[in-house]
Amino acid sequence: MHSILLTGFEPFGGEQTNPSWLAAQQLDGYQLDDEVQIVSRQLSCEFEQSQQQLKTAIAELNPVLVLAIGQAGGRTELCFEKVAINFIDARIADNAGQQPIDKTVVTEGPAAYFTTLPIKAMVNSLKQAGIPAAVSYTAGTYVCNTVFYALMHQLRDTPKVRAGFLHIPYAPEQAIGKSVASMPVDMVVRALKLCLPVALQSSEDMQIAAGTLD
Amino acid sequence: MHSILLTGFEPFGGEQTNPSWLAAQQLDGYQLDDEVQIVSRQLSCEFEQSQQQLKTAIAELNPVLVLAIGQAGGRTELCFEKVAINFIDARIADNAGQQPIDKTVVTEGPAAYFTTLPIKAMVNSLKQAGIPAAVSYTAGTYVCNTVFYALMHQLRDTPKVRAGFLHIPYAPEQAIGKSVASMPVDMVVRALKLCLPVALQSSEDMQIAAGTLD
Amino acid sequence: MHSILLTGFEPFGGEQTNPSWLAAQQLDGYQLDDEVQIVSRQLSCEFEQSQQQLKTAIAELNPVLVLAIGQAGGRTELCFEKVAINFIDARIADNAGQQPIDKTVVTEGPAAYFTTLPIKAMVNSLKQAGIPAAVSYTAGTYVCNTVFYALMHQLRDTPKVRAGFLHIPYAPEQAIGKSVASMPVDMVVRALKLCLPVALQSSEDMQIAAGTLD
Amino acid sequence: MHSILLTGFEPFGGEQTNPSWLAAQQLDGYQLDDEVQIVSRQLSCEFEQSQQQLKTAIAELNPVLVLAIGQAGGRTELCFEKVAINFIDARIADNAGQQPIDKTVVTEGPAAYFTTLPIKAMVNSLKQAGIPAAVSYTAGTYVCNTVFYALMHQLRDTPKVRAGFLHIPYAPEQAIGKSVASMPVDMVVRALKLCLPVALQSSEDMQIAAGTLD
Repeated sequence: MHSILLTGFEPFGGEQTNPSWLAAQQLDGYQLDDEVQIVSRQLSCEFEQSQQQLKTAIAELNPVLVLAIGQAGGRTELCFEKVAINFIDARIADNAGQQPIDKTVVTEGPAAYFTTLPIKAMVNSLKQAGIPAAVSYTAGTYVCNTVFYALMHQLRDTPKVRAGFLHIPYAPEQAIGKSVASMPVDMVVRALKLCLPVALQSSEDMQIAAGTLD
Repeated sequence: MHSILLTGFEPFGGEQTNPSWLAAQQLDGYQLDDEVQIVSRQLSCEFEQSQQQLKTAIAELNPVLVLAIGQAGGRTELCFEKVAINFIDARIADNAGQQPIDKTVVTEGPAAYFTTLPIKAMVNSLKQAGIPAAVSYTAGTYVCNTVFYALMHQLRDTPKVRAGFLHIPYAPEQAIGKSVASMPVDMVVRALKLCLPVALQSSEDMQIAAGTLD
Repeated sequence: MHSILLTGFEPFGGEQTNPSWLAAQQLDGYQLDDEVQIVSRQLSCEFEQSQQQLKTAIAELNPVLVLAIGQAGGRTELCFEKVAINFIDARIADNAGQQPIDKTVVTEGPAAYFTTLPIKAMVNSLKQAGIPAAVSYTAGTYVCNTVFYALMHQLRDTPKVRAGFLHIPYAPEQAIGKSVASMPVDMVVRALKLCLPVALQSSEDMQIAAGTLD
Repeated sequence: MHSILLTGFEPFGGEQTNPSWLAAQQLDGYQLDDEVQIVSRQLSCEFEQSQQQLKTAIAELNPVLVLAIGQAGGRTELCFEKVAINFIDARIADNAGQQPIDKTVVTEGPAAYFTTLPIKAMVNSLKQAGIPAAVSYTAGTYVCNTVFYALMHQLRDTPKVRAGFLHIPYAPEQAIGKSVASMPVDMVVRALKLCLPVALQSSEDMQIAAGTLD
């Protein structure tokens, strides 16, 4: 049995829950088919600890694919991130009280890594199913981008293990009183069941426009 | 058996569906308890026809409560409208091809009517249940506001029949490619099952702040 | 010499300035022509006091036209308000510490008043000059709407004295760190010099679409 | 006399003007001091041509600093871009009719370059002056990002020649009818006069938080 590693984060920024973990947790043990099952792990919202947890999980599971998920309050759709940058700039302290500013994720690492997931094909499969999704070109400069960069760096010599990052909107209960968009966790779970098989089966990504003007 | 009249609109503005009718339709025949059941009717997205349909339905059903529902693309939460204004200004033509500009809904009618629903209590019940909801102070100047105003005007002499208007976000499949918020129709249905009993049972509205600065 | 009364507010909500007064102040004494000049007055951001100040200024000046201006943080353009509602619901306390909830502005007053300014013609003149402007259908439920409603109520028996309310965006220095739109005070001043003559000269408003769908 | 090269773009996407060139044009020949003057050049909104024009201008002027400017409709503030990515994905065709999808800017180039301008110090100088500004972490995937990446690639061996990219909001006349933020070109010009000397004089960037969570 092969594993897909799915990670979600613990709550941060004063929130009581984190929909990224609520969604990943529901899929822990889910079998895509006879050969592949999902293993879900929660990451700390800490710059240092999260990278170690990711490394440990990858070493232990030897996954065929890794998708890290994070909450992006204010986004309106599922956002598959294209690029992880070697840059940390924390607007608020992480859950360990650290607030690094103007740092690299990996000293001497390249400026950026692109995801190795076929994210256009994944986005397309979700749109076909009526679920709002898009490609995003910034994962921010906080723990999400750090985990994404660390993930791509850890797997830089094993390109066959596809990896990437998904930003998801607030859960509805988090959006109350904020006047921002939200998406039920059940819809995120349904989306993951749809797009992960697409990720496994697409040998090349689709050639369709998914860009932004600025 | 008493009736609650629930109305939703047909699609307009180039959309294939209208979540207001999809939600209302699911609740047609739903019984709140032994004495009250919902009757749902679809309204045309036409300035003239919709008012007649509403009048016919009210005459036929003699409802104890009326809630008209409409789609408000771009909104992030369920919006209970406070005020209907005696003003029509159509940015696009209605489904009958009419585009009235700077007209009244009812000649010699008052400038506005307030809803008679306990909308703060309804909003509060939804927030408690984790569903984003708020009071809104403009229903626009298109068919939604016209139906809302016509509804309050038709019931102006029977204040015991509470009535109001609910604006709902796009359904997720409508939001694809638009980068705007959405809410699944199932969540709207769940919200209606929660807040309609509150509307029936609240003799007075709650005294909690729900205003906007501008 | 006839007077146009222009009012702006003092700062509120933790802001250091209020662009509505900064703009009005610059136009105090400005002559539109040989017969009409602007007189500007600052209003307190207090529900009670502001209404008295407005009444006193109108009694003293006997103006031919009144435009009250207020800051609407987050708006992207100059918004000429269509309708004032007889409703107060304060999300935050006013500058006198009062936070009325679910109150009327005028007991037994009508639900709403429409502006008597030719706001479509005014908006049109600004757009022609390259200045973003629009008609708005809610002035909120705070001090701005209260002043607007009180203004229309005070002048209800003198329809020849046209009156209305203009909401303006943050000044640029207020928008710093908020990621919201702003408009320089100089542009607001230029806009007022353009649209106030239009207001005086238009016997009827323009018949052009300026509505919103929801 | 040393040169600062300032570039702006021709109009695109159906617009009649491009505020990036309107601002740059006003500063052509402007002397920061006795030793440094600005030279402004217009770039075509074409993927191929713009890179050539940039190369030609740099070869001709041998500038001490290069700032490319582009219009970012919908942004609310001046956005100094942190990172240029080696990726092109055109949502609309460029002005030469080309719409490349999923291409690199430079074959075998690194995934990304960071700006070499002290952008935090530049942002800080503008905020101090009351002008909304921020660091941005995506320049999109259209001609702006392409020019930015090409610029950093062309100067990769001459790090003393600092270079970067500035995205600016719509001019007010472009925002009419769009309900989006805008900024007068004069304010952009004033901002450039303030932040370009800061860029020349700062040997290191400021260590202040300017990150985004997602």
